[in-house]
Amino acid sequence: MSVTRTLAEFVVGAKTESLPDWAIHEAKRTLLNLLAISLSASRSDDARILIDWARRDGGRERASIVGSDLKTPPSTAALLNGYLCHLQDYDDTHFPTVLHPTAPVWPAVFAAAEEHELSGLETLAAFVLGAETACRVAISVHPWHYDAGWHITGTAGVFGAAAGAGRVAGLDVDQLVAALGAAGTRASGVREVFGSHGKPLHAGQAASSGIQAATWAKAGFTASDDIIGGRRGFWAVLSADGHSEEALLARLGELWELRMNGLKPYANGVVSHPLQDAVIELRNAHELTADQVAAIEARVHPLVPELMGRAEPRVGLEGKFSFRHCAAAALVDGAGHDAQFTDEKVKDPVIAAVRARVSATVDPTVREDEVYVTIVLKDGTRHDIHVEHATGSPENPMSDVVLRAKYDALAREVFAAERADALWHAVWTLDAAPDVSEVAGLMQLPRR
Amino acid sequence: MSVTRTLAEFVVGAKTESLPDWAIHEAKRTLLNLLAISLSASRSDDARILIDWARRDGGRERASIVGSDLKTPPSTAALLNGYLCHLQDYDDTHFPTVLHPTAPVWPAVFAAAEEHELSGLETLAAFVLGAETACRVAISVHPWHYDAGWHITGTAGVFGAAAGAGRVAGLDVDQLVAALGAAGTRASGVREVFGSHGKPLHAGQAASSGIQAATWAKAGFTASDDIIGGRRGFWAVLSADGHSEEALLARLGELWELRMNGLKPYANGVVSHPLQDAVIELRNAHELTADQVAAIEARVHPLVPELMGRAEPRVGLEGKFSFRHCAAAALVDGAGHDAQFTDEKVKDPVIAAVRARVSATVDPTVREDEVYVTIVLKDGTRHDIHVEHATGSPENPMSDVVLRAKYDALAREVFAAERADALWHAVWTLDAAPDVSEVAGLMQLPRR
Repeated sequence: MSVTRTLAEFVVGAKTESLPDWAIHEAKRTLLNLLAISLSASRSDDARILIDWARRDGGRERASIVGSDLKTPPSTAALLNGYLCHLQDYDDTHFPTVLHPTAPVWPAVFAAAEEHELSGLETLAAFVLGAETACRVAISVHPWHYDAGWHITGTAGVFGAAAGAGRVAGLDVDQLVAALGAAGTRASGVREVFGSHGKPLHAGQAASSGIQAATWAKAGFTASDDIIGGRRGFWAVLSADGHSEEALLARLGELWELRMNGLKPYANGVVSHPLQDAVIELRNAHELTADQVAAIEARVHPLVPELMGRAEPRVGLEGKFSFRHCAAAALVDGAGHDAQFTDEKVKDPVIAAVRARVSATVDPTVREDEVYVTIVLKDGTRHDIHVEHATGSPENPMSDVVLRAKYDALAREVFAAERADALWHAVWTLDAAPDVSEVAGLMQLPRR
Repeated sequence: MSVTRTLAEFVVGAKTESLPDWAIHEAKRTLLNLLAISLSASRSDDARILIDWARRDGGRERASIVGSDLKTPPSTAALLNGYLCHLQDYDDTHFPTVLHPTAPVWPAVFAAAEEHELSGLETLAAFVLGAETACRVAISVHPWHYDAGWHITGTAGVFGAAAGAGRVAGLDVDQLVAALGAAGTRASGVREVFGSHGKPLHAGQAASSGIQAATWAKAGFTASDDIIGGRRGFWAVLSADGHSEEALLARLGELWELRMNGLKPYANGVVSHPLQDAVIELRNAHELTADQVAAIEARVHPLVPELMGRAEPRVGLEGKFSFRHCAAAALVDGAGHDAQFTDEKVKDPVIAAVRARVSATVDPTVREDEVYVTIVLKDGTRHDIHVEHATGSPENPMSDVVLRAKYDALAREVFAAERADALWHAVWTLDAAPDVSEVAGLMQLPRR
C-alpha cells in the first residue's frame, strides 16, 4: 500500500477522544503563541504588503485575518495568517527537523474550521493531526532535504496543512490521498530567500495550498496515489539523497512529534537561542553593561554560523540571521523580542559595537540546543557559562507562565489588556466551545 | 553580478519596437491556441471543480476567465486560465525542454494586462519576454531538472509568469529581481501527478504565483538577490545534477527560444506526435480500417515509453499518457483532439483492440520529433513510414491555416461561428488595440 494512503488513513481514522490530553493542551498553546506573534507582526509594513493586497482583491468574507478587520476567502486568510505567523521568526520549532509546524498548519485548520463551523475540540484535534503529518513528513526526509537547500516549513508544512484542513472538511481516505497529492506537488520554498519576505511566504503558501487542496479534493480533484513515496514523488524528487519510511509511519498515534515541538523565547532562528540564554543569564547575574565587554566568545553547533552567519546586518530582518546581533542585543537589552530586530536596533551604535566583539567557534560535539559562552571584560575578568538545553527546547519547555508573559508583551502591542485577556481565555477554553467564532472575533480589530 | 539580475535587466530593458515581427506574430498564435483549447476545456467537469470554487470565493471582478462568465481578482484568473490551458495537454511545447510556455505565462500576462489596461502591442511584447524567460530558465537546467522528476512547465514557468507580469506592471530592475525571487522560491510541481488534475494545476499555480510575485514586489516585497544562481537557489536546489549559465544568458535578445516552440496538432504529450502523424498518414494513404490491422510497430525515442507508457488506460485522461491509445485512436478516428481522449473512447472496444496490437521499440538514435512505423495487416502486407519531423515541431511548424482549423474545431464547441470569428480577428489585430478588453470580452460567455 502507498505510504501516503497509510498516513491518510491515520488522519481520517484517529478518534478525537483518544488523543492525549497534553496534545490538546499543546494545540491551545501553539494557537496562543500564533496569536501573540501574529498580532505583533500585523502592525508592520511587511504585513501591510499582503494585507493591502488581500483587501483590494476582496472576496467572500468567510475567514478572519489576525490583527486586522479583514475577512476573506479561506485560502487567502490561510496565506496571510501563515505569513504573519512566521514573519518575526518567532513561532514554534520541531526540534528534530527545524520545521515550524504551527505557521503552515494552524492557519489552514483555523480557516477551514471557520468555513465548516467545526467545534472547538475537533478543531484542536485537527491541528494535532495536521501538525503530526507535517512533522512526520519532515523527519522522514531529515536531514537530507534541509541540507539540499529546502525550507522544510514550506515543503513538509503543506502536507500538514492539507491533512489538517482535510480533517476539518471531513474528507474520506481517497479524498485525503488526493488532497495530499494536490498539496504535495505544490511543496516549495528554498533557503536562498532566508532573511527576506520570501521566508514567511513559504508558510503562508503551504497553508493556502493545503486548504485549497482539501477543498478541491472534496469536489473531485484528482492527484496521484502516492505523492510521498511514488517514483516521481516527494521523497524521490525533493529528497533524492535519502528518506526513511519508518520515520514517516512507525508507531503513528503512539509517538507524537508534537512532543518535540518548542515555543520560542526569542524572535529569531532557534539555533541562536542557547547563545541568547547564556548572554542574558550572565548579563543579569553580573549586571554587565556594553562598555564593560571586550569579547563574547561562543562554542556552538555548526548550524549557528551556517544559518545565522550574516556578519553585518543592514536592516532589522537581517539581524535575525546574525548570531552576533542576537548576542549583542541580548547583552544590551536583555531580550530578543521583535523590538530587538528593528532597522534602528541593527544600526544602534552601542549594539553595533558589541556585535563586532562577538565570535563563535564551531564544535560538532555541541548539540543544537547547547552552548558554551565566555564573556571577557575589559578588565580581564572572564565569565563562563554552559547552557545545556535552551529555553523552549523539548528538555526545557517554555512554561504556561512564561508563554503568558510572551503573549501579554506581544498581544498588548495591539489590544488593551481586557481584550488580550478575553482572547487568551477564549483559546484556553476552546475545547468547550461550539465553534471557533469567539476566538476569530476576538483576534480581529473592529471593522472600520 | 547575479544571473537573476542580468535576466531582469533584459526583461525590463528590452524595447518593444525592437522585438522581431515574427515573435509578435507567434505571440498572437499562442494566444489563439490558448483560447481554442481553453474554450474546449472550460466545458468539462475537470474545469468546473476550479471554476465553481473561484465563483464561490468571488472577489474583485477585474480579470476574465476564458469560456466562463466569471471575472475574478487577477491571480485567481491566472490560476484558472493556466489550469484550463494545460488541462487537455493540447498547448504548445518548447521542443528543447518539453516546457509548455504559454500555459504559465500567457494567463499571468493577460490578467496583468487587464489590471493595468496595457496596450495590445505591449501585452504581446510582455508575453514574448515572459516566454523567453521561462524557456531560458528551462534550458539552463535541461535535462537534469526534468530527469530528476520535476514538471518543468510549473517550475521554469513561474519565472516566465513573474517576468511577463512584471513587465506589464512596469517593475524596475530591483523590483523584478524581487519578483523573480518571490516567484522562483514557489517553483513547484513533480511528475508524479502526471495523468491527474495535478498536472494542469502546475501551470495555473505558476501563472498565479508569478502575477502575485510581480504585484507584491511592486509594493515592496523582498526576496533574494539571485534566486536562480544563489547558493541555495533554483539551480542548486532544484537542479543539483547540473545547470548552464550560458544557456540562461548567452545572446539574450538575439536568439529567441520562442523559435523552438511548437503548437500541437494532437491533445496529448508531444513525444507521441510523430507516431500519430505516421499512423494517420498511412491510414489515409491506404484507407486502413481497424479490422485490417494486425500490428502497429514503432521505433521511438526513449521518452515515448517513459512519459507515455500507461499500458491500459482506464479513463480519458490516462489515455493521453498512453502512446498505444494515441496510435489506436489515430488509426480508428484519424485524429487526436480531446474528443479522442474521453472515458468512452478509452473503453471503446474497437480502439481497445487496436491498442493491444501497438508496440514500440526504444532506439536512442531516433530524435524526439522522429519515428519509424510499420503497420502490418492481417493479410501480411507491411506499410512502412519514416516521419522525420512531427507536425508542430520547429522544423515542421503548424501553419496559420492549420491553426485556424484547430481553433475552429475547438472554439466552435462553445461559440457560434460569428463569435469565434470575431475573437480570432480581435487577437489577430491585437497589436493595434488600445488594450486587451475586446479579446477579454469576446473570450467569455455572456453574464448569467
